This record gives sequence, C-alpha cells and structure tokens, in this order.
Amino acid sequence: MPHIHLDNDLPGIRALMAFRPETAEPLSALANILLRNPEGLSMAERELIATYVSYLNDCFYCNHSHGEIACIYLHGDGELVEQVRKNFNKAAISEKLKSLLAIAAKVQQGGKFVTEEDIEKAKQNGATDIDIHDTVLIAAAFCMFNRYVDGLNTTAPTDMASYPLRARQIAENGYGSHIYTQKQPA
Amino acid sequence: MPHIHLDNDLPGIRALMAFRPETAEPLSALANILLRNPEGLSMAERELIATYVSYLNDCFYCNHSHGEIACIYLHGDGELVEQVRKNFNKAAISEKLKSLLAIAAKVQQGGKFVTEEDIEKAKQNGATDIDIHDTVLIAAAFCMFNRYVDGLNTTAPTDMASYPLRARQIAENGYGSHIYTQKQPA
Repeated sequence: MPHIHLDNDLPGIRALMAFRPETAEPLSALANILLRNPEGLSMAERELIATYVSYLNDCFYCNHSHGEIACIYLHGDGELVEQVRKNFNKAAISEKLKSLLAIAAKVQQGGKFVTEEDIEKAKQNGATDIDIHDTVLIAAAFCMFNRYVDGLNTTAPTDMASYPLRARQIAENGYGSHIYTQKQPA
Repeated sequence: MPHIHLDNDLPGIRALMAFRPETAEPLSALANILLRNPEGLSMAERELIATYVSYLNDCFYCNHSHGEIACIYLHGDGELVEQVRKNFNKAAISEKLKSLLAIAAKVQQGGKFVTEEDIEKAKQNGATDIDIHDTVLIAAAFCMFNRYVDGLNTTAPTDMASYPLRARQIAENGYGSHIYTQKQPA
C-alpha cells in the first residue's frame, strides 16, 4: 500500500503523476527527452541503460516497465535484456554500450565513482561527449525515478503480462504526461 | 576538469545546462516547482532538504549552492543551515521538518529504506501527504542532480564568496533555464 493517499489505483510512477500533475509535467518531459531523443544513442540503448540502473536499484516497477520497452525496440529479444541486467559484459551488445553501462553502474553508486579511465574507455569505443552526457543523466535520472516510486511505496502490477501491453503504449506514444494516467489497454 | 568537453567555463550544473539545452529545460522546470512551490512546505524547508541530501551525497557544488539559498530564506542564519547538515535533530527547526529530513535521509540511501514508521511519525508531526510527497521527490531529485554534477566531474567555485552572490540571483529570479547560463553578478 502506498505511504500516502494517492486517490487512484494506478501502478508505480503513474499513481504519483496523477496525484501531483505539477511535477508530472517536467518529469515526463525529462523522461521523453532522455529516452526518446533521436540524436546519438538509440532508443533501445537508452532504455537498456534505464532498465539496468533500475535493476541495480532493485526497483521492480521501473526495471520491468523499461525492460519491456527495450524489448520492443530489440524486436522482442527479452533474453538480451535479461543478459544486460545479469552480466552486460557477456551480452551481444556493442563495446561502446558495454562501456556506457559500466559508467551507468558507477553513477548508480554515486557521481564520484566515475573515473577518467571509465570515460576514456567509452571514448575509445566510439562514445561521443553527448553519448556520455546522456548516459550519466539517464543513470542519474533513474536514481531519482526509482527512489520516487519505491520511497512512496507505490504498487507494481504482479500480472507480468500487463508490462508488455503497457510498453507498447509508451513505445507508440512516448512519455507525455497525459499517458501516465491512461488506462491499460484491454 | 570535466569528463567531457562542455565548451564553456560555467561551474557545476550550469555548465551542463548550457551544454545540453534540451535537458536543461525540464530539469530547471523540475527544480523550480520542487524548490519554489508556494503550497505546503516553505521555500526555506525545501532548500534545507535539498542542501541536506546534497551534503549526504557529498556534492560540494549543490550542497553549498542550496545551503546559501536556504540561508537567504532564513534571514542569513547560516549556522542553522550548518546544524541541519551536521545533526538536524539538534537544530532549531520544527519537529515536522525533522521527521521529513529523516525521510529524506532514507531516500538518499534508497527508496525502500523509507518505513511506515518514518511516514507515521511525519504525519503525527503535522506533515500532509503533499509535504511527504514533495520531500521524497526533492530528496530523489537531488540524488539525480548530485550524480549529474559529480558524475561528469564539473568544476565548483573555490571562492566561497561567490555562492551567496549566486544564491541571491536564484532567490530573486527562480530556476528558469535561462538563469543557469547567466554570468555571476559583478
């Protein structure tokens, strides 16, 4: 049960967005630019970074929500998403993405854990300054979103079949604040 | 030296805002609503929560920037700001704010650290659902801002006299994205 009376029975961050539209607006705008910006990293890469950080933060709702969105962009390859969570170094992803996920893992621990060597390795693997910037900010933002969702003890659907349905809505429509309060597709 | 080439010599998050205006917009809108919303918590209370979380995350730039803004709202009582950082339970602040700072400290560790007892205590001390919501989101947001600022190794002014000058600009004008790239007052 959520820690506060949210006056709706939406799951995860959607309940918080509906409860407080004032903050929903910039939060959804931030999610949209970070996860759907067409410049630099692909949407699959952005969602994998979000999924991995949410997994590290043990946020069930964000981990599974973003994992399913990544899965759509990866043409249904849920096994790859799971490999990224468990051991990204062995996953069939680019060396560039591996070095960016290593940076994301450091950010999850704290900003000062990121070393010059981490950055240098990412650059050698082809990451641009914008790629590195976006990786750090996606990882940092999910340290916020995960804490927001779990710090207020929101509910997460236990029916795992609901996540892919919801993921399709997001993949098609983006993270505009209106989407958060929409009902699940039938 | 920052980890990426930011093409400006602004300090802290201001350098990142100037580097990436696309993300600066929602980030500054979020800071503005969280730290200057007139409903519920006062601006002094909001800035104290931000300062305390930044102190716990050891983010020099955010800790001192927001500490000085809090100081303005507290009519120059920098000693109170320092007491909140070091031992808020002994500071001359309300029991309500003490219990909200305790929640903020849990959020800094991770969302799941917040207990029902923490929430119950805050409610008994007069905190509303909105107060608790905003406390959790301010604490979560500074876990993002601190990681963003330190994860990209931005510079922080070592001239401590610059922080109160900058704080006055923010107190007068808010966190609109334009303010981040403005020059320091002479």
